Amino acid sequence: MVTEALETLMSYNLDKLAVGVLGSHSALQILHGARKEGLRTVLVTIEERIPFYREFKHLIDEFVVIQRWSDLCSKNVTNKLKKLNTILVPHGSYVEYVGLKCAEEIEVPIFGLRTLFKVEASQREKMSLLRRAGIEVPREYRYGEDFEGLAIVKLDGAKGGRGYFLAKCRDEVVEGVEKLIKDGVIDGSDSVLVQEYVVGVPAYYHYFYSPVLGRVEILGADIRYETSVDGLKRVPPKLMEVLSAKPTFVVVGNLPLVLRESLLPKILDYGYRFVKATQDALPPGIIGPFCLESIIKDDLDIVVFEFSGRIVAGTNIYVGGSPYSQLYWDEPMSTGRRIAREIKLAVEKGVVDRVVT
Amino acid sequence: MVTEALETLMSYNLDKLAVGVLGSHSALQILHGARKEGLRTVLVTIEERIPFYREFKHLIDEFVVIQRWSDLCSKNVTNKLKKLNTILVPHGSYVEYVGLKCAEEIEVPIFGLRTLFKVEASQREKMSLLRRAGIEVPREYRYGEDFEGLAIVKLDGAKGGRGYFLAKCRDEVVEGVEKLIKDGVIDGSDSVLVQEYVVGVPAYYHYFYSPVLGRVEILGADIRYETSVDGLKRVPPKLMEVLSAKPTFVVVGNLPLVLRESLLPKILDYGYRFVKATQDALPPGIIGPFCLESIIKDDLDIVVFEFSGRIVAGTNIYVGGSPYSQLYWDEPMSTGRRIAREIKLAVEKGVVDRVVT
Amino acid sequence: MVTEALETLMSYNLDKLAVGVLGSHSALQILHGARKEGLRTVLVTIEERIPFYREFKHLIDEFVVIQRWSDLCSKNVTNKLKKLNTILVPHGSYVEYVGLKCAEEIEVPIFGLRTLFKVEASQREKMSLLRRAGIEVPREYRYGEDFEGLAIVKLDGAKGGRGYFLAKCRDEVVEGVEKLIKDGVIDGSDSVLVQEYVVGVPAYYHYFYSPVLGRVEILGADIRYETSVDGLKRVPPKLMEVLSAKPTFVVVGNLPLVLRESLLPKILDYGYRFVKATQDALPPGIIGPFCLESIIKDDLDIVVFEFSGRIVAGTNIYVGGSPYSQLYWDEPMSTGRRIAREIKLAVEKGVVDRVVT
Repeated sequence: MVTEALETLMSYNLDKLAVGVLGSHSALQILHGARKEGLRTVLVTIEERIPFYREFKHLIDEFVVIQRWSDLCSKNVTNKLKKLNTILVPHGSYVEYVGLKCAEEIEVPIFGLRTLFKVEASQREKMSLLRRAGIEVPREYRYGEDFEGLAIVKLDGAKGGRGYFLAKCRDEVVEGVEKLIKDGVIDGSDSVLVQEYVVGVPAYYHYFYSPVLGRVEILGADIRYETSVDGLKRVPPKLMEVLSAKPTFVVVGNLPLVLRESLLPKILDYGYRFVKATQDALPPGIIGPFCLESIIKDDLDIVVFEFSGRIVAGTNIYVGGSPYSQLYWDEPMSTGRRIAREIKLAVEKGVVDRVVT
Repeated sequence: MVTEALETLMSYNLDKLAVGVLGSHSALQILHGARKEGLRTVLVTIEERIPFYREFKHLIDEFVVIQRWSDLCSKNVTNKLKKLNTILVPHGSYVEYVGLKCAEEIEVPIFGLRTLFKVEASQREKMSLLRRAGIEVPREYRYGEDFEGLAIVKLDGAKGGRGYFLAKCRDEVVEGVEKLIKDGVIDGSDSVLVQEYVVGVPAYYHYFYSPVLGRVEILGADIRYETSVDGLKRVPPKLMEVLSAKPTFVVVGNLPLVLRESLLPKILDYGYRFVKATQDALPPGIIGPFCLESIIKDDLDIVVFEFSGRIVAGTNIYVGGSPYSQLYWDEPMSTGRRIAREIKLAVEKGVVDRVVT
Repeated sequence: MVTEALETLMSYNLDKLAVGVLGSHSALQILHGARKEGLRTVLVTIEERIPFYREFKHLIDEFVVIQRWSDLCSKNVTNKLKKLNTILVPHGSYVEYVGLKCAEEIEVPIFGLRTLFKVEASQREKMSLLRRAGIEVPREYRYGEDFEGLAIVKLDGAKGGRGYFLAKCRDEVVEGVEKLIKDGVIDGSDSVLVQEYVVGVPAYYHYFYSPVLGRVEILGADIRYETSVDGLKRVPPKLMEVLSAKPTFVVVGNLPLVLRESLLPKILDYGYRFVKATQDALPPGIIGPFCLESIIKDDLDIVVFEFSGRIVAGTNIYVGGSPYSQLYWDEPMSTGRRIAREIKLAVEKGVVDRVVT
């Protein structure tokens, strides 16, 4: 709970703060960044990943080993984290690994807005927050509704695009969803969102909202690399027939991108709008990294089809800094390092309670 | 005019030179680079973009705010720029924003070759300069001529690819062009260029010609990210039918690229040839950044289908330096910074008149 | 021969070691890296490439100019290299340029495992080494065998993908191979490998095995940029018909990639397995850089369809360091520089014989 977490924070030795992270997603970047800013580091991991993370033990002060990810919220583990003065940094795997309840209620202070996790778990609530921010979003179809053009069918929960599919009519939507239900992937048609497939190019913007400096920074941009869709596009139409493969959208990596500078004012404006909407709906509002996920159309409209309220994996491209972070900081500033910098700035100004919930 | 601009230069305090740029395209990179080289910086912008550029005010010494872009050439503004000892750096939006006449005739010194702007405004003259340089170019079809394979239809003026289209026969060319005329996008078929669509992969090379060092540097390479063509390729052939969308080629971003090292000798040779051709046709020839825009075929032939005589947006990828600029400079050298370095070198050697027109 | 090369090494002045490389592929990166580590540098090149490499003479202590690449093994040239205390760094063009016999038998010490060159020359032996390592590989079809789905037909020797083609049935395989034989590209169907075309996305992992530190480092990842396949995917299905172009797979560049962090444990495990397999089959086993070339499927399986036992061109992306090398070294560490660092570390510890064969 927020209050307990803030109480915990009060008990911390601020000279010995540690950044804690689950062993996945963008952990290495976050640890590396914390180390560069002189903070201590804690890696929470399950046993089978120890051999991997041990290769980076020069970045890690403490290993906290757990049996299952959901053990994060056990008294034993949270006590250990508190004793280490840990501020937990939630990333894209956090809620997926430990479950929504533990993610929200953990008594350890979190760098970020924990009340946003529930919103993120629902495709519909996500879109509603974006609309509230005045950000352009794709049309949304009711399940079973007829539509023109193509639709993309999305599932609740951040599972890296797994299960998403394209459909060219109502019947294909229903057929696909019924299969997912039969396969036990989803419980019912309530957990799917049927969205207009907007024609244009995908672009993902990495933002950082600094409560200390009171500004939104654009720290980078990327394109997701998705299997199998980004492989299938290399297969000529004539040969596609024999593959009988439908494109899938499982994210396995990220590619760097820079944007036309004349698009940046709008992109930054979207960032500020999003921050404002979270401050209105879920005070104190978002803290630190977030991502808007968009299609840029050929009339230069930017349609946001999803967001992430935490650090996204695309930031892993920029462990050594991005073209954009150079412009703000003129030093090799990754999003992971930016998190640690914000904690340090907050400590220096005596406002560390403003960067955690 | 060149003479007036050079006279203006004579009156400048060379210890207080400023780099001036319009707020768009690659302005942030250019300002950042100037700052790193210790030059002063001037941003010329319209009002609506002030909020955005104010976020980067740590990079900007002076804001010059104008009502409309074309006000750049008003006495009032040019006097301000002269008083600030400004050398203007033209980028890809420069001519498009202020118009050809102002772009060419402004009395403020320009880092670059201002007589090239007129050539760049015409697809036909561009191709003719490339041919003169002995650089391989695509076949060109007369409007209304029959052809084999595919053609791409291009419009005059750097509008970021807007309006370009593919056609598989003469009739599709005519139909498309007539629609553009009807829609008021172009005046007549004289402003289009019908080019062979060369089969291969696009690749853009960022060059820098240094009059001070007398050499051409390869500072980077990129691929353009174009909406909607780069999005449509993710849609499976079977689903394309329902989209009824034709690919468009509006550039919204850039992706980093490195090239097979054995291609670099030819690419560098093309760079030297291009410099030579501009020196012959438009003395003193090109100054600073330019870009050759090519298709690499599978026999490793490189066919150049366009050029840009100024800094291109693809260089924004490399604000922190590129793989290639590392090899020349072994420091984080962007094209923007390289411009400022060239000005500094020219001042040190007393040849600053050689880097402006 | 190994013994002669090691004898040569004994005669070297270890305070004046030079890194030698053929002028192609990743030479600039290797030279740049050696220079940063304070080693001397030797470039071996044919005459026509001198103008190009002279532009980088600030990175090169000695030019060794030869008539034809195969002259590398002439007494004259090897003597020169020995006198310069040269350790030769083989890259992706090395065997292709000088021929297998010279590559293997040269008396100059090689940073790498020279007995691996022969394995690399055969697609079948390559796959067999991967299987021996316990790494998942694509199904392999006998020439003339029926198959389901798509197959890719590959040729022996590292020719950058030239001649590779897709086939959707046995007959297309045979037809294509017979054409290659007729055209004199290959001698017979023995030099082709018919592999299952695995549906997913390509991803290439750059490893470095350090005999001195006893560990495998992941130094980067990339995607190859292949002409014409990566261009053709931009052409809409309807227009493809008129092109009558089949996709080809000639590598002309590389694009940066980062991977989902949860995939890295498996990728690193594959790296260790590969090292172990070479140690078992070809002691002392691989030294320095190698690359596994894979498809990632949408169930997150990683299928390795090829490897390279030397530095790959994809590392040229990271002349200034990669997101991954940052995590290990926290300095701008390219693979080229990592090679030089390993030589330096080996000299310091008195085990330089462990990094050459």
